[in-house]
Amino acid sequence: MSENKIPYKIYLTEDEMPKAWYNLRADMKNKPAPLLNPGTGQPLTAEELSPIFCEELVQQELDETTPFIDIPTEIRDFYKMYRPSPLVRAYCLEEKLQTPAKIYYKFEGNNTSGSHKLNSAIAQAYYAKKQGLKGVTTETGAGQWGTALSMACSYFELDCKVYMVKVSYEQKPFRREVMRTYGASVVPSPSETTEVGRKILAEHPGTTGSLGCAISEAVEVATKNPGYRYVLGSVLNQVLLHQSVIGLETKAALDKYGIKPDMIIGCAGGGSNLGGLIAPFMGEKLRGEADYQIIAVEPASCPSFTRGTFAYDFCDTGMICPLAKMYTLGSGFIPSPNHAGGLRFHGMSTTLSQLYHDGFMEARSVEQTSVFDAAEQFARVEGILPAPESSHAIRVAIDEAMKCKETGEEKTIVFGLTGTGYFDLVAYEKYHEGLMTDEIPTDEQLAASFAKLPKI
Amino acid sequence: MSENKIPYKIYLTEDEMPKAWYNLRADMKNKPAPLLNPGTGQPLTAEELSPIFCEELVQQELDETTPFIDIPTEIRDFYKMYRPSPLVRAYCLEEKLQTPAKIYYKFEGNNTSGSHKLNSAIAQAYYAKKQGLKGVTTETGAGQWGTALSMACSYFELDCKVYMVKVSYEQKPFRREVMRTYGASVVPSPSETTEVGRKILAEHPGTTGSLGCAISEAVEVATKNPGYRYVLGSVLNQVLLHQSVIGLETKAALDKYGIKPDMIIGCAGGGSNLGGLIAPFMGEKLRGEADYQIIAVEPASCPSFTRGTFAYDFCDTGMICPLAKMYTLGSGFIPSPNHAGGLRFHGMSTTLSQLYHDGFMEARSVEQTSVFDAAEQFARVEGILPAPESSHAIRVAIDEAMKCKETGEEKTIVFGLTGTGYFDLVAYEKYHEGLMTDEIPTDEQLAASFAKLPKI
Repeated sequence: MSENKIPYKIYLTEDEMPKAWYNLRADMKNKPAPLLNPGTGQPLTAEELSPIFCEELVQQELDETTPFIDIPTEIRDFYKMYRPSPLVRAYCLEEKLQTPAKIYYKFEGNNTSGSHKLNSAIAQAYYAKKQGLKGVTTETGAGQWGTALSMACSYFELDCKVYMVKVSYEQKPFRREVMRTYGASVVPSPSETTEVGRKILAEHPGTTGSLGCAISEAVEVATKNPGYRYVLGSVLNQVLLHQSVIGLETKAALDKYGIKPDMIIGCAGGGSNLGGLIAPFMGEKLRGEADYQIIAVEPASCPSFTRGTFAYDFCDTGMICPLAKMYTLGSGFIPSPNHAGGLRFHGMSTTLSQLYHDGFMEARSVEQTSVFDAAEQFARVEGILPAPESSHAIRVAIDEAMKCKETGEEKTIVFGLTGTGYFDLVAYEKYHEGLMTDEIPTDEQLAASFAKLPKI
Repeated sequence: MSENKIPYKIYLTEDEMPKAWYNLRADMKNKPAPLLNPGTGQPLTAEELSPIFCEELVQQELDETTPFIDIPTEIRDFYKMYRPSPLVRAYCLEEKLQTPAKIYYKFEGNNTSGSHKLNSAIAQAYYAKKQGLKGVTTETGAGQWGTALSMACSYFELDCKVYMVKVSYEQKPFRREVMRTYGASVVPSPSETTEVGRKILAEHPGTTGSLGCAISEAVEVATKNPGYRYVLGSVLNQVLLHQSVIGLETKAALDKYGIKPDMIIGCAGGGSNLGGLIAPFMGEKLRGEADYQIIAVEPASCPSFTRGTFAYDFCDTGMICPLAKMYTLGSGFIPSPNHAGGLRFHGMSTTLSQLYHDGFMEARSVEQTSVFDAAEQFARVEGILPAPESSHAIRVAIDEAMKCKETGEEKTIVFGLTGTGYFDLVAYEKYHEGLMTDEIPTDEQLAASFAKLPKI
């Protein structure tokens, strides 16, 4: 293996790192449908979004035409602390599988937040600071996004209030401590600190909370406190824009060695990682300059793309957020307990939804136990303990590499390894003990959920 | 900051990575005193060590004259999966401290074991495989070493039996799960699987175990089962040899940019990280080619260098291991509960002990609460959540940088950041809650412990 010309890890130099984010929407003929005001049914204006998001982020959210948006120097400096992330040639996995396929993965887990979420957190914190705000609020479930935002706010000395779903707050004390180390205040949701929280607690005294409720609390605090705004870690166009740094680095690293991938694989929850990873490749595809097989991987227990419907729906279970046209299982759909917390979202980025609808990408759903089989197989030969979310992409990458073994094709496979699994060891333990199950929604369950979609 | 010529992170290319380990003892005039057989009081021979360690490792343990020992290709290939590790310029910390000092740290935490321990684990596993052995046994306390060894054994498909101190086994289930993911069998010690374990359980039915007992069990299993050997993660000369890869990479990265450090700082438990980091710099110092200020940092609760005595002592609390001449607090010394588990060792590498005794390095002891102050300060500006062990070095690096601020000196400080703190969040929680204490041994306690040293 040592004689190989392509190193195990391709690192860009700091000079080679992207200086602008790529806005995929600029190259889309069919633009994603606009967010609608749930009260009026009309597209949301910049004015309506400004009390919730920073001004520059509102502009980025609505900008469908500018292909490249400069990354401010302050953000590029922060990126240099943990980026460029390595593009790794999975020589050991290839050897283990005895496949003629060439496998690469872009590893985003080498930072304390443990995932790619930091790429957008630092951007959102920067614009909040630039606008002279005091702080930001957000919700977090499993805690990856909350951790990333805490790190970003600490760097810019912004106040950071995180509403953490109560059951996670209690079950994941380590995540909470990391956020506290970075100076964030972490509140279990529902809480007594908001009107909506008090209302929910009065109605359901013993509730362990939900993401929908935590979003409602975070939005309330942001809109009621002068100098605060609300921030979100996925789904939004602005988040996909920031995450394009993943794909841009990946493409630059491949280009450096003259490598053209045949397929690009990423896990998909709200779409932040997948949208970022595929951005420049999808851009070439949309402009007719190149062709790639692009595969979104989702859990069989929460199959938005593969079994959802393309319709306007609420982004939150509390039905207070804007309506988005997307592949959705219905905002009332509750996925079965699934350890890939980052993929348990009923909907999907509007941009990715439109691209999928127009046939530019495909999607697969995979079952949790087979995902952990792949995770363990990967960890043992490539060293890295992967997050359950990332392992969805590993599963399909291995499946595709094994197909190559049958056909003899030397395909080049690139997948996104979004993060590490250090905080997911309860799930690994269940897997080792044989206690992990897969619960897939029935057609009847989905039909009942679709019936409750808002009539637009 | 962006205009700076020295990047945030200096990465060597794969071609620039070390091809041989550096054996510091070859340049020492006063060699470390030999290990003694506790029964005979005579220096241990290769023959006596062979039933415990692999043959090539016995040779490395006893070799005091060969300055460079080639790193086998198989190990270099494994190193490429997670090395070179970055040498980071701490621009953000310098800015925060407003110091004229230039601070660099060598970060060894970017692998799933979370620390530098993997550098020696893979070497020891390789030689075991090469000798045709079935497997290896070891003990682990906090779990960093056990994790590293599990990863290494999984790569070479060797059986790996880890005896984990029972209290850690119960309190750190996540560490246990990582090891299981890599296929290791993890046994809480004391256990019913060994004679010594059964004896201890009969005498102390409710015991939660100790490192001394876990060592005894691991050694018993290695010597009684054909095809097994025992491996150890620190203290030994062979371990310092493998860890020299840290210092060699650091020096190559500095040389690439023409940087000459003024001081090198590392935390010291058994000496594996410190000995590796300083190796090539100490070599230059011993040969009279250059001078560096070299500082070992240890916890005030376990101050082997700063308050220990230089004498022959047992390496384990069970008094079954060889006698080593080292700075020791006495093998019966029990340090107060201290969260830097990796630094809770009563003794010290014989090589580092001799160098310290001969005045080639200095030592400082620091209190735990001030260590966590430094850890949090570092995390907030440099992003990385450091392990408590590593944070001892951060503490002294910050202290030295603040001295430079007073004097106006532009010193270049290099310190070793051995690992990440993802599995140490119980300690961070105590720190945040104000429940962390420092317990420093009294002179009377140490005198009583010294009185029990073996008479050699």
